[in-house]
Amino acid sequence: MASSSRLPPPKVPMELHAKNREKLLKSLRRHLTETSRPLHGFVFLQGGEEKTRYCTDHIELFRQESYFAYLFGVKEPGFYGAIDIATGKSILFAPRLPADYAVWLGEIKPLSCFQQQYMVSMVYYTDEIVGVLHELSNVLEKPWLFLLHGLNTDSNNFSKPAEFEGIEKFEKDLTTLHPILTECRVLKSDMELALIQFANDISSEAHVEVMRKTRVGMEEYQLESIFLHHTYMYGGCRHCSYTCICATGENSAVLHYGHAAAPNDRTLQDGDMALFDMGAEYHFYGSDITCSFPVNGKFTSDQSLIYNAVLDAHNAVISAMKPGVSWVDMHKLAEKVILESLKNGCIIVGNVDDMMIERLGAVFMPHGLGHFLGIDTHDPGGYLKGLEKLEGPGLKALRTIRELQEGMVITVEPGCYFIDALLAPAMESSNTAKFFDLEAISRFKGFGGVRIESDVHVTAGGCQNMTKCPRQISEIEAVMAGSPWPLN
Amino acid sequence: MASSSRLPPPKVPMELHAKNREKLLKSLRRHLTETSRPLHGFVFLQGGEEKTRYCTDHIELFRQESYFAYLFGVKEPGFYGAIDIATGKSILFAPRLPADYAVWLGEIKPLSCFQQQYMVSMVYYTDEIVGVLHELSNVLEKPWLFLLHGLNTDSNNFSKPAEFEGIEKFEKDLTTLHPILTECRVLKSDMELALIQFANDISSEAHVEVMRKTRVGMEEYQLESIFLHHTYMYGGCRHCSYTCICATGENSAVLHYGHAAAPNDRTLQDGDMALFDMGAEYHFYGSDITCSFPVNGKFTSDQSLIYNAVLDAHNAVISAMKPGVSWVDMHKLAEKVILESLKNGCIIVGNVDDMMIERLGAVFMPHGLGHFLGIDTHDPGGYLKGLEKLEGPGLKALRTIRELQEGMVITVEPGCYFIDALLAPAMESSNTAKFFDLEAISRFKGFGGVRIESDVHVTAGGCQNMTKCPRQISEIEAVMAGSPWPLN
Repeated sequence: MASSSRLPPPKVPMELHAKNREKLLKSLRRHLTETSRPLHGFVFLQGGEEKTRYCTDHIELFRQESYFAYLFGVKEPGFYGAIDIATGKSILFAPRLPADYAVWLGEIKPLSCFQQQYMVSMVYYTDEIVGVLHELSNVLEKPWLFLLHGLNTDSNNFSKPAEFEGIEKFEKDLTTLHPILTECRVLKSDMELALIQFANDISSEAHVEVMRKTRVGMEEYQLESIFLHHTYMYGGCRHCSYTCICATGENSAVLHYGHAAAPNDRTLQDGDMALFDMGAEYHFYGSDITCSFPVNGKFTSDQSLIYNAVLDAHNAVISAMKPGVSWVDMHKLAEKVILESLKNGCIIVGNVDDMMIERLGAVFMPHGLGHFLGIDTHDPGGYLKGLEKLEGPGLKALRTIRELQEGMVITVEPGCYFIDALLAPAMESSNTAKFFDLEAISRFKGFGGVRIESDVHVTAGGCQNMTKCPRQISEIEAVMAGSPWPLN
Repeated sequence: MASSSRLPPPKVPMELHAKNREKLLKSLRRHLTETSRPLHGFVFLQGGEEKTRYCTDHIELFRQESYFAYLFGVKEPGFYGAIDIATGKSILFAPRLPADYAVWLGEIKPLSCFQQQYMVSMVYYTDEIVGVLHELSNVLEKPWLFLLHGLNTDSNNFSKPAEFEGIEKFEKDLTTLHPILTECRVLKSDMELALIQFANDISSEAHVEVMRKTRVGMEEYQLESIFLHHTYMYGGCRHCSYTCICATGENSAVLHYGHAAAPNDRTLQDGDMALFDMGAEYHFYGSDITCSFPVNGKFTSDQSLIYNAVLDAHNAVISAMKPGVSWVDMHKLAEKVILESLKNGCIIVGNVDDMMIERLGAVFMPHGLGHFLGIDTHDPGGYLKGLEKLEGPGLKALRTIRELQEGMVITVEPGCYFIDALLAPAMESSNTAKFFDLEAISRFKGFGGVRIESDVHVTAGGCQNMTKCPRQISEIEAVMAGSPWPLN
């Protein structure tokens, strides 16, 4: 059929997950050796379960738990997975399905089918966990299970360790696995990068499609629908990385707009800026991309001023990123570039270093510069054990304060917003009132905000931007006027 | 903008929920009077909460709990709602949002805003529940709360009664509310019917769009994407009533295909039948529609035979439906029409009454004929207290066995499937082997199945089909060949 995409969904190599398991095993064995512990026991994880909505039989579309997806790549609910630390063998435990599953839900696959599909050493049923692991264990005492239990520093939730009948027949280690497995996820393999790149490619293309179709008078959610359709229809992306943020006008100053209580339901007005933060997910791996542009296709001078302030920050950060660079320094670099631009645009006045001391940047950009991206949109590992969150506006919102390392994928998403709830107190505070040109800033009442977000892979010598959207004002205006992308 | 729909999303009248509350109040007061209980206390429900995915901060798109949606129409999470049985006053309790909500999630609306929007008598914060209800209560003893607790007969889950700090300061009634409120939901008001009609209209239109765009070589999920896009883009339907079933070829014999373990990922082949079961939801009210057609646009004689067997059953049932008719009789009518057609087509042989006694119909249609439809796809109330599920293949799968009443909306969804897991034992059984023409039935190996599903409103004098899809073979072939729908 005729397709409006040049990007067929790629085959997913299941070696990716085999290699993830090898990486974990190597790292875990090294840790056990260094702490003088024996090299036996099992890494043991529980996959996600299908859930019904409230008391009904409405089944929510299942999406695998992320750590389980990382190690096993299993799309079906109800599985457990183990890795034998002594031998490196991987074992999946599949649910034993009732006979009428074949009538209602599909073919009951033999275990050998999962073994081939997921490239694991063995597959058994979930009711065989105790027997199989005891059989495989070569020790006389209770075998050790290394279970996943640890803090997600974005949600402040703890991951739930596996549970099953008979778990009391094992010794449980609840502290070792989480930091080691999380750190494995921080540094992406080439096969992981290829999936994140595809998610970026199809999502970038969908953002261009949205730009082209945006018109005054449309509803915000129609642009969401165009994005979702493009990434699913042509990219096979059934899931999004997160709920689409399709904010226009003053909504573009609401950082996480688009949720059920603010559901992308405004009508686009002439003169609005749009801030569209949308990313598709492909075989668990995601993307996270924001484009900002005027809905009528032509930037005003004020829109250009704010847009270029953010674009300069975005580009300055990407130019500076390389292994060893502190993410806190990158955040401050973005703040400084934005403040300098606002000063050059006569919106704020005074010494930029003084502004930095007073944390004025956080009035315009209250969120952190970016976050790790992978199987989760806010991928874990932002705070290694021992790292504490910083204090102070903006800095406390950072999802990581680590130094960059080769293999990290991190979003670079500076923004500049006019948020009454932050501007009003800052304009009244004795420390910061002096920086504001009241008349100039009043022009931006209801302006909303601008965010430019790309997904960036840290390489040995620097970094690579995986996102391929029009970024220059001239590029955006050309694409919105109908030019092909990339421009000829 | 140019739209490919004639159906702008209608305004939602919040009177709908006020009338739902009035209906409940009337019914509850009558019950209390009849059981000689005092007319005071509060109906008290807890709305749904936003949930994160596993341990992460990925927030699932919130959808209100259905009973709460029915009474209050509130789209935001974290609310409670009460109805004062003595006065009829309605009270919403909104969550007290932290100041930084304004930065991240949007404007913090004043309580008066919710009062106007949701047409309730009063709005307070959730931390004021105890004080407000005690204040409103005119009795000296602990006020009564009528909480929602009861069995959902489709899921076998129990609804969770409201919980809040201080609930011990009330008397709790856990048994009265559920059957009365559930019965209110069974009989739809005109305003509810209008929303179900819109969900049907936009979904019917989207099914036609899917038929037109279906081509050999496409992926099943691409048709899902076209459906979702049409209903969201033009109908403003952000939610679907259920996960889309886009089954082709032998997948069309898997009744609930399309879930995460069978994710609409087959490539369409020439000669396949498609069975697409998809319905959009608009302001909580849903639709549930199945169309079956050959993916290449032309029915073969075998495809026509099975399709017309199911269509005749669908039409026979709709012709017979009216208040007082037993749904079990309708189910048997559908079975009988299908068996007669299969006999006329020389696929089965013998006496149809004998086949009915042996429950042969359930080999070809293992599911029930249909279910109530409303805020839930499988809307509750199928089994009034005291009604027990029937025994026997097919009959035990019925989601209701009630007599039809004016105001019910129920799906009519006969199907005929060739399911190895059911055919093989039936062809071996001494009771049923005699009915099969082995050579004829072997032609249908891999055929899959056909289902035709419409949403039907029971009226005073009969019923009305709310679904507007092409149903006759000539209509389907014409629409797939490019004719407008409705045909000129």
